[in-house]
Amino acid sequence: MSDVITLAHGAGGKQTAELIDSVFKAHFANPEFTGDDAAILSLGGQDLAFTTDGFIVSPSDFPGGNIGKLSICGTVNDLSCMGAQPLYLACAFVIEEGLPMSDLERYAAAMEKTAAEAGVRIVAGDTKVAGKGQVDRLFITTTGIGRRLPGVRLSGTEAKPGDAVIVTGDIGRHGCTVLLSREQFGIDADVTSDCAPLWGTVKSMLGVTQDIHVIRDATRGGVGTVLYEIAAQSHVGIRLDRAAIPVAPAVSGVCGMLGLEPLYLACEGRLVVFAPQAQADAIVTALRQGPYSGNAAIIGTVTAEHAERVTIRTEIGAETILPPPGGELLPRIC
Amino acid sequence: MSDVITLAHGAGGKQTAELIDSVFKAHFANPEFTGDDAAILSLGGQDLAFTTDGFIVSPSDFPGGNIGKLSICGTVNDLSCMGAQPLYLACAFVIEEGLPMSDLERYAAAMEKTAAEAGVRIVAGDTKVAGKGQVDRLFITTTGIGRRLPGVRLSGTEAKPGDAVIVTGDIGRHGCTVLLSREQFGIDADVTSDCAPLWGTVKSMLGVTQDIHVIRDATRGGVGTVLYEIAAQSHVGIRLDRAAIPVAPAVSGVCGMLGLEPLYLACEGRLVVFAPQAQADAIVTALRQGPYSGNAAIIGTVTAEHAERVTIRTEIGAETILPPPGGELLPRIC
Repeated sequence: MSDVITLAHGAGGKQTAELIDSVFKAHFANPEFTGDDAAILSLGGQDLAFTTDGFIVSPSDFPGGNIGKLSICGTVNDLSCMGAQPLYLACAFVIEEGLPMSDLERYAAAMEKTAAEAGVRIVAGDTKVAGKGQVDRLFITTTGIGRRLPGVRLSGTEAKPGDAVIVTGDIGRHGCTVLLSREQFGIDADVTSDCAPLWGTVKSMLGVTQDIHVIRDATRGGVGTVLYEIAAQSHVGIRLDRAAIPVAPAVSGVCGMLGLEPLYLACEGRLVVFAPQAQADAIVTALRQGPYSGNAAIIGTVTAEHAERVTIRTEIGAETILPPPGGELLPRIC
Repeated sequence: MSDVITLAHGAGGKQTAELIDSVFKAHFANPEFTGDDAAILSLGGQDLAFTTDGFIVSPSDFPGGNIGKLSICGTVNDLSCMGAQPLYLACAFVIEEGLPMSDLERYAAAMEKTAAEAGVRIVAGDTKVAGKGQVDRLFITTTGIGRRLPGVRLSGTEAKPGDAVIVTGDIGRHGCTVLLSREQFGIDADVTSDCAPLWGTVKSMLGVTQDIHVIRDATRGGVGTVLYEIAAQSHVGIRLDRAAIPVAPAVSGVCGMLGLEPLYLACEGRLVVFAPQAQADAIVTALRQGPYSGNAAIIGTVTAEHAERVTIRTEIGAETILPPPGGELLPRIC
């Protein structure tokens, strides 16, 4: 491993996993520290989900959202992916000296609105200020507590051969939006972030059936990284159908121009779901009625062979391996 | 209020309180969002304490500790101050590209050791990397969950006229240490940070009596800021006795040279305690047997008159007002 921290360590892919294994898991190992989106804690006869996420997105305002909205969605969605109703949030701010008060006000207003939509209360906070040039504008760390619904048991280790792989909407919009918001690219396209709080989306699926194996939000690293993670955690193969993967035309266009794979662009309002084939159509039907999952689709299946690998059938029918997640695509996406 | 964020907004004093009131409380108001060190959440018939803190101390290594140790102590102590046994922590890192891996390893090892001493498990984490110059070395945000002991009800609103004011040890060491660690001062003194996890200290006091009104850790802003906060929250006056306040000779010396008030220097291992006079001697006796509170002392009393004001009797017997906490003394102390 590298002897200094690199941007790749923060990209959510292979190097991030190596850093977590070699430093954090080595020191913090305990039964509750898992590879899932949130820890499950048994407290007073109930299962609580507990998760934390730092948000350092640059720029802090982007079409479809800002760092405030994102900081609520990211944590609400991590709890939701465990089948846990988000209840309480704590938010810690590190702010650069000189940040306009009106910017902070705008982010707080976005947090308030998004928390209200998600039905979650911000109950604790912290504010630190660093000097000019010691932090870039502001970082927000949001930690959440949720209550897992009885009978629900979702984990990245639970994918089974035969499962359908579902995405809850068109992919890659957040990553594409943030990329275009950075001046250096100079591309003009009509793309907004998919950033959204998804507890309602998860609840609608669990209302159809509790027979769902995995739900994970495809944030940093995108759908492709999530699929490789789950293939590894569950020791299964995953076969995708390229034609079935929903991608907005503008995102497709940008990916074509820049040679990017939309499966590796971050989403902030999309879930990857593994469920038995027998349940898949009913789940997709329910999803398509929701506000953030109108173009949900089955994009592949889980296989016993090719364990820990993701393959993809191209539009012309060829079967290839999806290149595993590599180094840094785009720093500070979330 | 200023139209941009200033360092004073992060100093823990008056401007921090104004920022919290005008921006965060305005948007996040709810019954659980209080002025105490942690929110109390009723979940499954038990009271859980929930708190978050961002750590941005500079330098990240200092005599007596480092940012890793501090990030555990700070959150463990906030839970402890609510009478809550610390159980679980979540830690989110934002790391600057280029940070030596050996530094991160050292901080993680300190976190492991301190968490073990405090009897708390790190169960969730997050790692982000920002480019060079976008974050200064590393920031850690630590969020904790604790279980409040039955029958305990501690709050900054509970100080009562007649209460004794106790500090659990000599004050101002952390602030003094960090200050001297910055090269620009060029003063050489033998001072180490008091940084320590204090659940054991709190438990020992609650073992003597549950009749304690307030416990608060005197971090950013020091003992003086905590006293003004509690005087305001409880609408009482506080009268201090200068001669009774324990200050290490080296800290006294530095304060004398630089014209600093030790009451406004941060501690990271000291508590301010308000309890009925009848209990005070027994509490101090118990404290003096503990590892982090050998020089605990009664430093003052609560009065009905002079509400929201802190007065101090000097060594020569004069009674003056302790100047209220002002702007920025020293940025990035924790």
